[in-house]
Amino acid sequence: MNERFKTNREFLKANFQVLDDIKTDIQKGIPGIPPQKKYDKDLKVIELPEIKKDIISKHNVFDCLKDRRSVRKYSCENLTLEELSFLLWSTQGVHKIIGNGPASLRTVPSGGASHPFETYLFINRVDSLEQGVYRYLPFEHKLIFIDKLNDMENKVDLATPRQPFVPNFASKGAVIFAWSAIPYRAEWKFDITAHKKILIDIGHVCQNLYIACEAIKCGTCAIGIYNQEFIDKLLGLDGENEFVVYMASVGK
Amino acid sequence: MNERFKTNREFLKANFQVLDDIKTDIQKGIPGIPPQKKYDKDLKVIELPEIKKDIISKHNVFDCLKDRRSVRKYSCENLTLEELSFLLWSTQGVHKIIGNGPASLRTVPSGGASHPFETYLFINRVDSLEQGVYRYLPFEHKLIFIDKLNDMENKVDLATPRQPFVPNFASKGAVIFAWSAIPYRAEWKFDITAHKKILIDIGHVCQNLYIACEAIKCGTCAIGIYNQEFIDKLLGLDGENEFVVYMASVGK
Repeated sequence: MNERFKTNREFLKANFQVLDDIKTDIQKGIPGIPPQKKYDKDLKVIELPEIKKDIISKHNVFDCLKDRRSVRKYSCENLTLEELSFLLWSTQGVHKIIGNGPASLRTVPSGGASHPFETYLFINRVDSLEQGVYRYLPFEHKLIFIDKLNDMENKVDLATPRQPFVPNFASKGAVIFAWSAIPYRAEWKFDITAHKKILIDIGHVCQNLYIACEAIKCGTCAIGIYNQEFIDKLLGLDGENEFVVYMASVGK
Repeated sequence: MNERFKTNREFLKANFQVLDDIKTDIQKGIPGIPPQKKYDKDLKVIELPEIKKDIISKHNVFDCLKDRRSVRKYSCENLTLEELSFLLWSTQGVHKIIGNGPASLRTVPSGGASHPFETYLFINRVDSLEQGVYRYLPFEHKLIFIDKLNDMENKVDLATPRQPFVPNFASKGAVIFAWSAIPYRAEWKFDITAHKKILIDIGHVCQNLYIACEAIKCGTCAIGIYNQEFIDKLLGLDGENEFVVYMASVGK
């Protein structure tokens, strides 16, 4: 085997036996961190419409599973705020708050209910929202407006180099999702076994985006190839305790 | 930051810039490996029923997204072969064969259409199938019967230690899915950037299992905690070029 694959392959394996020798931070009684990143109360908060079934145009789950494809070309049509609200709920929506922390049950599973993600949006064309960078607040089902981000369209294109499939955001994409990981939310419980889980969990999230887009006749395409430093800087993330882990473009 | 988290966190990041300095095997003209593992033609092959929409009892995709939960207790009811067929198609079913290799488009996305997984099943209670270990053939939509595996129920319980949520297979679970990764299918194209992608991809797969189970009123629970060596040995995998990467239990 190619020697340089060896370490990486090990990372894919279950290694929970290491926890026999490690006292995790939760076991040490160290308090966890909030399940939703705090935000400056001066930021503009946007209420999201309640999720309603009538938003869906392709109802049957069989058709949604069957027809799902990666869609890389979009029309210039806007998404409605109802549609965006549905996509956010489908990917990170909170069903139920449980225990301390608090932990939450959501539309997607996450080992230990740790949900170690934040959802950032580069919004290009959504009814009644100005262009810019937003963050989803899953516990409140709201958006916060973070930044207008001058020349956003070109910056998003620059953030996703080597990705021939990513549509030119300026002309076609309505929204780009960028999910960040805050690893400590999972490390607190799972220590060094957290990281495999974080990647699997973001796969759960993105698959629900695919299904939900299909349901409202939008298209999406996951983006695994992006410029880590550039995108983290765009979003004001420190690249250590929080950094982008996966992205997806969405459009009509 | 806890020093031992550092390397693992790096693994979560996009590092495609390394490909500037690496010639991948596909670029070197090295042939890829088959997208479906070969099998001994003496093994018993089971045709799976065609996927039909009428298998679904909870039709609306909104309800499936809304109601999805991790279900850890099951009845002793059998799954039908039609239901199992639907779950296999939903998680790895091939829509279209493309290019050389051949690559395939499936019900789930996979970067570079590499789909680096095989699906193994520990079947306990499915109509018209004897108990034992099976493998799904996505390109043929068939099952192969691999082994009767004496004392399977206890062995599966032993393979999933430390997992308080996993139902006692003997009394409750109808099927346990065990997805193996064959990393080279992705390494061939993506070299050391393949491994992050493999974990995200298996998350896509498992989320579709959740949605599909909801659609046929089954329950499922993802299993990230398992005994790597034990389960690989049970399935006859070498643990290096192929090994289990994620599991899930399914029952009524």
